[in-house]
Amino acid sequence: MIAETTLGEIAATLGGDLLGEAALRVTRIGPLESADAGTIAFLANPRYASQLAGTQATCVIVAPASAEAAAARGAAIVTPDPYLYFARLSQWWAARVRPLPPAAIHPSAVVAADAQIAAGVDIGPLAVVESGAVIAEGARIGSHTVIGRNARVGAGTRIAANVSIAFDCVLGERCIVHSGVVIGADGFGFAPAKGSSGPEWVKIEQLGAVRVGDDVEIGANTCIDRGALEDTVIGNGVKLDNLIQIGHNVRIGDHTVIAAFTGIAGSAVIGRHCLIGGAARIQGHIEICDSVTVSTCTFISHSIKKPGNYSGAYPFEENASWEKNAATLRQLYPLRQRVRALEKKIDPS
Amino acid sequence: MIAETTLGEIAATLGGDLLGEAALRVTRIGPLESADAGTIAFLANPRYASQLAGTQATCVIVAPASAEAAAARGAAIVTPDPYLYFARLSQWWAARVRPLPPAAIHPSAVVAADAQIAAGVDIGPLAVVESGAVIAEGARIGSHTVIGRNARVGAGTRIAANVSIAFDCVLGERCIVHSGVVIGADGFGFAPAKGSSGPEWVKIEQLGAVRVGDDVEIGANTCIDRGALEDTVIGNGVKLDNLIQIGHNVRIGDHTVIAAFTGIAGSAVIGRHCLIGGAARIQGHIEICDSVTVSTCTFISHSIKKPGNYSGAYPFEENASWEKNAATLRQLYPLRQRVRALEKKIDPS
Amino acid sequence: MIAETTLGEIAATLGGDLLGEAALRVTRIGPLESADAGTIAFLANPRYASQLAGTQATCVIVAPASAEAAAARGAAIVTPDPYLYFARLSQWWAARVRPLPPAAIHPSAVVAADAQIAAGVDIGPLAVVESGAVIAEGARIGSHTVIGRNARVGAGTRIAANVSIAFDCVLGERCIVHSGVVIGADGFGFAPAKGSSGPEWVKIEQLGAVRVGDDVEIGANTCIDRGALEDTVIGNGVKLDNLIQIGHNVRIGDHTVIAAFTGIAGSAVIGRHCLIGGAARIQGHIEICDSVTVSTCTFISHSIKKPGNYSGAYPFEENASWEKNAATLRQLYPLRQRVRALEKKIDPS
Repeated sequence: MIAETTLGEIAATLGGDLLGEAALRVTRIGPLESADAGTIAFLANPRYASQLAGTQATCVIVAPASAEAAAARGAAIVTPDPYLYFARLSQWWAARVRPLPPAAIHPSAVVAADAQIAAGVDIGPLAVVESGAVIAEGARIGSHTVIGRNARVGAGTRIAANVSIAFDCVLGERCIVHSGVVIGADGFGFAPAKGSSGPEWVKIEQLGAVRVGDDVEIGANTCIDRGALEDTVIGNGVKLDNLIQIGHNVRIGDHTVIAAFTGIAGSAVIGRHCLIGGAARIQGHIEICDSVTVSTCTFISHSIKKPGNYSGAYPFEENASWEKNAATLRQLYPLRQRVRALEKKIDPS
Repeated sequence: MIAETTLGEIAATLGGDLLGEAALRVTRIGPLESADAGTIAFLANPRYASQLAGTQATCVIVAPASAEAAAARGAAIVTPDPYLYFARLSQWWAARVRPLPPAAIHPSAVVAADAQIAAGVDIGPLAVVESGAVIAEGARIGSHTVIGRNARVGAGTRIAANVSIAFDCVLGERCIVHSGVVIGADGFGFAPAKGSSGPEWVKIEQLGAVRVGDDVEIGANTCIDRGALEDTVIGNGVKLDNLIQIGHNVRIGDHTVIAAFTGIAGSAVIGRHCLIGGAARIQGHIEICDSVTVSTCTFISHSIKKPGNYSGAYPFEENASWEKNAATLRQLYPLRQRVRALEKKIDPS
Repeated sequence: MIAETTLGEIAATLGGDLLGEAALRVTRIGPLESADAGTIAFLANPRYASQLAGTQATCVIVAPASAEAAAARGAAIVTPDPYLYFARLSQWWAARVRPLPPAAIHPSAVVAADAQIAAGVDIGPLAVVESGAVIAEGARIGSHTVIGRNARVGAGTRIAANVSIAFDCVLGERCIVHSGVVIGADGFGFAPAKGSSGPEWVKIEQLGAVRVGDDVEIGANTCIDRGALEDTVIGNGVKLDNLIQIGHNVRIGDHTVIAAFTGIAGSAVIGRHCLIGGAARIQGHIEICDSVTVSTCTFISHSIKKPGNYSGAYPFEENASWEKNAATLRQLYPLRQRVRALEKKIDPS
């Protein structure tokens, strides 16, 4: 679907200083480098300011520092934070080109008689809402999604198709939950018992649930386990990418962002405003303070008490070279001892 | 739901020596440090015995060595293995606070006419049981779960919502399968064929299936692929966490426990009573003997023939320091050669 | 199901030189080492030629170089590429033992009135096909699978149970999509906005979609995110294993193969005919040229412009030894400086 609009309408809705004709039409938002006539683009990083001259975009969203250069080549919208402006433009745009169908409970959905469904709730085809569940106003439940017994879904929260929300779990307001997400499966807890040839494992029932705050986004196929004795807690404004694993009893502070494939083991506590890179691993029972950045592929094996950037990925190289270096790594400690011995021989003082 | 009970009832059901009044009431199981009146807690690790004095718990489950200290502050249940006692208590508790609804086949489920459904089987809303499937007594099939053609589900096995069990696959008795699990998707097998610009890939049909033993638990969104020629086999009592990948033809020995995000490549054979840490990787076509512990984030690239603990995670550090060390790692083998040269110069004998 | 056939029928269908009686019966395809009478096996790797003498297989598929040795012990089919022959045999075999049921739209499926369903399409129980979706001839949609608004599924494509294809996404012809796959969930994009205690995150709507080429296979629980402004693109003949994450705007070249748990961050571009090992990580916004092999567990942090093999996994060892070496790794850069100092002292020239 094409959403034709004018620069004037955009500026009237989202603000910013429009340099250029309000009547100019745009039909898509696009990247600066592949923009053509009809495209509105943005320049978020002044490093790429040189791309301004060459772009075919009808309009470029820029910061004040780039206003002159942008205007020299065509229309511009000047705003202190072009990237944030772009985010808001994308939301306004999506609401125009992808209007939600009117809310309704599809006749094929299976909704328990005692579920509480507020006004304006949308329940898709073949969704299941179990006994005692509470769905607040304006929430949307996708096709095939299951809302378990006594679970609660906050106002305006949108849940995609094929999601599983287990019993007693709570989602806040305005959350977005993507397909394949599993909230409230059992945490992984077992007590060893003596078996005939070694330990066997006795299940510890997971008696807690999951509580998710407001404005949380949860990516496709991500899992958040229910707590063992108390709840697993996801703070407000947390953003989780796809295929993340959150163990039981984990607590994640407000406005922390976690990229795909990251695993957080049981009872870890993550602060607020952290940025956790993709495929990071957080050890169980540790604490990470506020405002910590963890790089991609980094395994955090103990608590972090100081804000900052932490890394621990193995550097890649051509295979032949890696083979030699990796093999030597197994001799690294003895190598240090050899260096120490040499130092002593040369300077025995 | 609150499950009020008495210490007397707990001890009568699960055993242990009750020190204190049998009539004392408890309303929840909780951690020692956040316990309040009405809480029954446990002390599994004698290292935390100092927490006994300060806890508000009504009753603490302890080992004989801590009996005196526990009784000095209130009621106690004394048992040789408090953690195991806690596990059994959690199971008894869950059965009280979360009684399963009576088994029934929901009218919205789609069950093939020739599927064999034993007595007391529960089939949730919108589940699908395909032709020739066999569901044994007391099994529970969650909403939206698909049991494929000729698949078999053992007695008492509980399968959550949105699970996919493909044709011909077999689950044993008393298994627990969480949401989003996929059992019996095709293993990843292709033969290269010469294409115009490089190899193209011809599918090898996966003619085996998956056989899962008794008392196996399988975490949310975990995948177990069907075998290429023979079956993929999961032993009895195996516990798999969330988001695990088990490749085709893998065999996992009884009572092995595997944490989240671990990937086991095709045709690997894992022994019994192993503990495989989170995000571990097991190379294909290798063997790991019984009683091996693999640490988190460790890549097992060749067979292990000796029980023990094996590790291989990159240590994290502050980013600036990591950058220097990681860059140097690419020069590690030459560094060793330089040390060797120094050693020869200093001690040329 | 047993598929009894004769060597003559196999050779007539798939070619190859049959050495032995055409009337000999085979009842399964099996590995050389566990073959018994009735098995047809193959010898792909001449290294295992010594297994020929001992196998009980009725027939072995071999390359010309092994023809004599194979024929000395029983029947053989001689073909230039035994592994490729085996792949084709497996396909022919599967079509015999697992004939697809006749295509039909199950009465429990929910198909929008304006969806375009071609002839011979199979739509399983409780599948959902939303408004404007187009399903080409011979496609098969599994139970509980959701085909979103205006999505398109190419001819002959087979989608398993519990798959989520979001609106506007396109799948080519003859694709195979396994259970739990999510295509077209939102990419992970947010702009920071100033909050009271640190950055908060404003959603960037993902205005693109996903385009998947022909002959693509997508493993269980794999996620392919929709693009932010343009589409995420998967080339023809690409094979994706289970639990893979493909970020928004990624482009993957034709006939590239990617193993399980690999994560490809947003806007990365992967060439054609690449082999990406399991649990590899590809950084966002980088480019990998054609014909690159990335080893298991390797993090590709910057672009690769030269075909070849690249690796970067930490080698595992016994835990005690790893602890010493890993701790020393944190001192690697200073260690190099110490070696340099020693070199200067010994040879100050």
